[in-house]
Amino acid sequence: MVMNSNNNRVEHFDSHETETTAIKLHTQISMPEIHQVRLPPKITALHKLKHRLSEIFFPDDPFHRFKNQPSFTKFILALQFFFPIFHWAPQYNLSLLRRDVISGLTIASLAIPQGISYAKLANLPPIVGLYSSFVPPLIYSVLGSSRHLGVGPVSIASLVMGSMLSETVSYSHDPILYLQLAFTATFVAGLFQASLGILRLGFVIDFLSKATLVGFMAGAAIIVSLQQLKGLLGIVHFTPKMQIIPVLISVYKQKDEWSWQTIIMGIGFLLFLLTTRHISLRKPKLFWVSAAAPLTSVILSTLLVFLLRHKAHKISVIGYLPKGLNPPSVNLLYFNGPHLALAIKTGIATGILSLTEGIAVGRTFASLKNYQVDGNKEMMAIGLMNIAGSCSSCYVTTGSFSRSAVNYNAGAQTAVSNIIMATAVLVTLLFLMPLFYYTPNVVLAAIIIAAVIGLIDYQAAYKLWKVDKLDFLACICSFFGVLFISVPLGLSIAVAISVFKILLHVSRPNTLVLGNIPGTQIFHNINQYKEALRVPSILILAIESPIYFANSTYLQERILRWVREEEECIKANNGSSLKCVILDMTAVTAIDTSGLETLYELRKMLESRSLQLVLVNPVGNVMEKLHMSKVLDTFGLRGVYLTVGEAVADITSGKAQP
Amino acid sequence: MVMNSNNNRVEHFDSHETETTAIKLHTQISMPEIHQVRLPPKITALHKLKHRLSEIFFPDDPFHRFKNQPSFTKFILALQFFFPIFHWAPQYNLSLLRRDVISGLTIASLAIPQGISYAKLANLPPIVGLYSSFVPPLIYSVLGSSRHLGVGPVSIASLVMGSMLSETVSYSHDPILYLQLAFTATFVAGLFQASLGILRLGFVIDFLSKATLVGFMAGAAIIVSLQQLKGLLGIVHFTPKMQIIPVLISVYKQKDEWSWQTIIMGIGFLLFLLTTRHISLRKPKLFWVSAAAPLTSVILSTLLVFLLRHKAHKISVIGYLPKGLNPPSVNLLYFNGPHLALAIKTGIATGILSLTEGIAVGRTFASLKNYQVDGNKEMMAIGLMNIAGSCSSCYVTTGSFSRSAVNYNAGAQTAVSNIIMATAVLVTLLFLMPLFYYTPNVVLAAIIIAAVIGLIDYQAAYKLWKVDKLDFLACICSFFGVLFISVPLGLSIAVAISVFKILLHVSRPNTLVLGNIPGTQIFHNINQYKEALRVPSILILAIESPIYFANSTYLQERILRWVREEEECIKANNGSSLKCVILDMTAVTAIDTSGLETLYELRKMLESRSLQLVLVNPVGNVMEKLHMSKVLDTFGLRGVYLTVGEAVADITSGKAQP
Repeated sequence: MVMNSNNNRVEHFDSHETETTAIKLHTQISMPEIHQVRLPPKITALHKLKHRLSEIFFPDDPFHRFKNQPSFTKFILALQFFFPIFHWAPQYNLSLLRRDVISGLTIASLAIPQGISYAKLANLPPIVGLYSSFVPPLIYSVLGSSRHLGVGPVSIASLVMGSMLSETVSYSHDPILYLQLAFTATFVAGLFQASLGILRLGFVIDFLSKATLVGFMAGAAIIVSLQQLKGLLGIVHFTPKMQIIPVLISVYKQKDEWSWQTIIMGIGFLLFLLTTRHISLRKPKLFWVSAAAPLTSVILSTLLVFLLRHKAHKISVIGYLPKGLNPPSVNLLYFNGPHLALAIKTGIATGILSLTEGIAVGRTFASLKNYQVDGNKEMMAIGLMNIAGSCSSCYVTTGSFSRSAVNYNAGAQTAVSNIIMATAVLVTLLFLMPLFYYTPNVVLAAIIIAAVIGLIDYQAAYKLWKVDKLDFLACICSFFGVLFISVPLGLSIAVAISVFKILLHVSRPNTLVLGNIPGTQIFHNINQYKEALRVPSILILAIESPIYFANSTYLQERILRWVREEEECIKANNGSSLKCVILDMTAVTAIDTSGLETLYELRKMLESRSLQLVLVNPVGNVMEKLHMSKVLDTFGLRGVYLTVGEAVADITSGKAQP
Repeated sequence: MVMNSNNNRVEHFDSHETETTAIKLHTQISMPEIHQVRLPPKITALHKLKHRLSEIFFPDDPFHRFKNQPSFTKFILALQFFFPIFHWAPQYNLSLLRRDVISGLTIASLAIPQGISYAKLANLPPIVGLYSSFVPPLIYSVLGSSRHLGVGPVSIASLVMGSMLSETVSYSHDPILYLQLAFTATFVAGLFQASLGILRLGFVIDFLSKATLVGFMAGAAIIVSLQQLKGLLGIVHFTPKMQIIPVLISVYKQKDEWSWQTIIMGIGFLLFLLTTRHISLRKPKLFWVSAAAPLTSVILSTLLVFLLRHKAHKISVIGYLPKGLNPPSVNLLYFNGPHLALAIKTGIATGILSLTEGIAVGRTFASLKNYQVDGNKEMMAIGLMNIAGSCSSCYVTTGSFSRSAVNYNAGAQTAVSNIIMATAVLVTLLFLMPLFYYTPNVVLAAIIIAAVIGLIDYQAAYKLWKVDKLDFLACICSFFGVLFISVPLGLSIAVAISVFKILLHVSRPNTLVLGNIPGTQIFHNINQYKEALRVPSILILAIESPIYFANSTYLQERILRWVREEEECIKANNGSSLKCVILDMTAVTAIDTSGLETLYELRKMLESRSLQLVLVNPVGNVMEKLHMSKVLDTFGLRGVYLTVGEAVADITSGKAQP
């Protein structure tokens, strides 16, 4: 026979019979030599702290390659560490370049209309969107560790920046102040992102769970699309508010401003863009269809408006755009004055959001090609590129999902594709700006709508509902928070729900009653395994969480309730009275001082009712704390066992004296 | 031989040899019938939700006594449930009354000077302290379920109320507004407390961990003592600030106001009070020595000042106090106006603090006498007594530790001792008020200092340091937060650190490498059990936490690092190459959608490196989610095992085809 048990750190013993008597016999023989729960090896507090800190801040052990290397190699490795370009540039060749040029030109054709559109989404002049597609990609190509990330402005960050700044400052009333705040927010976002990376606090963005992001993105996509009704319907006087209700009211109230030419053109191009998107989704090989569609739409619509320029006055166009490279904007950074708090808030919100998108996109494509992206290093790269961007008339940029997908599908091999894209943007900025004079705003609105509709991932939401109701709740709350309250508040709600979910789980952990599976020494949850039987006069409970201040009171009450219910059940069935409560501590991975006190209290309370409390299999650090706090001493030699099987055998054998 | 394993829900198998070949043989024989991880029984989402909610809100199953009872019994039980007085009053007899009268009079002798002193701490007129020792105890005796709680104002809540209100409103400048705000804050505190009880959200106060409270109380005690320097030194013009530095500066600056008569008297009585406290601490039987000391001090000092009234003008006295019962104060409640937010904030802060003290004190004495106090019911009782108090000129009251200790030691049997105390206070209010005319303020300062010094629990802090460094850090931060910043901010810091500690633990869980203990089938942490050996070409990892959105990225990176390190180690030792990674999921008590995705990703990434990923022993709800999300299907039949032993045996036997 076999002595299996429900434990994580069990000892081996050697019986071959199934009956209790045999177990008794066995335990008497083998107990002295094998049944001790061991303390972990002693290490100093300083060493423990060092280990703990290295787990918190350096879980990926980034310096492992530096170990045992000569100092010149170390220097080279450090250079490669901080500037990944030194890692791949030496092996760069013409065949790689050829593929990078193709993918770079492909994303440029997407980047130019996207840059103009997203800048309008942030209420910034269209040219800022192009500037933002020039400097940041160049910086990222030197610092970034992803080979497929396409860098540029993204819809969510643009939307959040636009909505947060416009609530206080209007671009049309005070363009200089608005620009100042936008660049300052970008600077703050970059500083925040780089600091997270340098301080290795990247785990902060993990608190935006995917579930809440699904809801947030869908809400934001709807908000953005509604905002685009202004352009799509040709409305001139539109509400600056972002919530769904005022926007719909505004659309309805201004219906005398609707222009049918604009509407027809808008819907036409929207249908064109959605169709191309659909084609590319169906056949990934035809990715270039949707990639080229925005530029095609811009060219076609511009031509159309140019040809009809004497007949279609009602269609509003971008108008004059200045030629030339990014002007410096250090002088526009704004570090005092009444709106500084707003700029900082906006910077942090857009910083977190763009970081989340950038890291997630980088990781996604890295895992497709089976290389790893270092989260903290990516944060530094994205942060530095935004700091540099804020000094050269760029607003918040990051790794964009749509650009990266196109980049990946077009066969990009290294960050050189970003350099090619930047060069194409450079040519546009220097020579092609006048061509955009007749580009209608409606086509930009159509491009934005077509882009953000992809963010509404109802299938993911349905999957959340099916698998995890609480995750679905988080998703729904952030969705409605964005839709009806405001974008930053929706974001806060999303984070709060995520944190609340953790706290709820921590403060109300599971306790399970274990029963013996007849004919074995296995102890299992009696709900999951219907054949498991309760051991007469013993109550076996498994605690499925660390014991903390946040749940120690609950656990104490819950365990006492289990005891009460067991006693009532015994009374009803005239069973033998309860003698012992066994706590299986296998899943109690940590304990704090409140938890230790609870165990001590519990033992005392049960003792006063003539019930013995026995612990089974405390893990390393729990064992250590039990020992240090002297709680272990109160349990004594016969109070801690290594397996439930041993504990039951020892208690039923009746020799419970120490 | 035996097949023990490191698992929580293991199955039994039946081999008798130690060699791998034997294991192979064995697994081939018994695998088909026993080695399946089972899904928990199917229950509907609604049922699951019901169960979950009942665990969150009714962990103690308060209505279990109502089950299967006739409706009249149900009515009686409900009456007893809401008014515990009906529970014990029918059995009340003269012998109990005798002991309650003794203890009631003893706490009255403490309550009267305490009431006056604590009211001064809250910057309220002394009479309000006596009012607060009359109405609330009466209400508590009807609603409360603790038999030993002595009800009245407490130092911490008084201090917090005083400090928060005085920052904006000064009692001496606008007494009516100050009273309005104090009573409104009391009303809010009561409402908040009762709502927590009614909504069964009592677990909110669990987030004030004991560790942070130790620091908070010590800091508050020092702040309070420093504030009393005003009374002790006889200073007239004193800073209204609470932080340590401005108070010390103010003490130094006003040193020409120091009065030597006051100082001598103050230090004399302080020494007397501290000595009696020391005696009672040494010999608990002499509890009455410290219980009677405050009243003795008040009587002696009053007599002294009365006799020396023509010589000692410099000693400031309480002065005229109105006779008579609590006047109604409903008309003073303040529900609009500029200071409402302050009243609400103060109410919530004092409400949480007084609740924490009341519940903790009730539980402490209940556990000494082995009965249980229902946290949620106590919250309702304390809340209702504060709401009633706010309408009858009382400020925040709760179960006071000092009164309850005296009550308990004096032999109180039921809440009748509170009624006796209230009666004694009533007599005082009606007839004895003029006697306090000459009571010097300095003796009140001495009483307060002697009382709060007991809150500095340096032994508890030392124990925290020894057992749990992170708990100690929380303690120290809340201590300095209170001392140098402000009381409510210190409280917020304390809560934030507690929550941060949980989040840190959740976002950086342990992963352990398991090894085989030679000659057995046991798999243990190789750090804790030095004899454990790695299994060639298999890496066995135990994850010690639920897999959440907050840690899934970390876990993925950490596991990949383990794999990398293992591969490097194998390369260095020319071992056989890594074939398989086994994840022991025993302590993974929950998983969310991000966690599921991580497992899926991880399997894919390892597969592309020709490594197999195998799960061992997913518990009930994790198994269920793996199944629902279809992640289980990707693992296949040979991807999930019940025990590490089985998994290793099956993989090393090389028959890993499905």
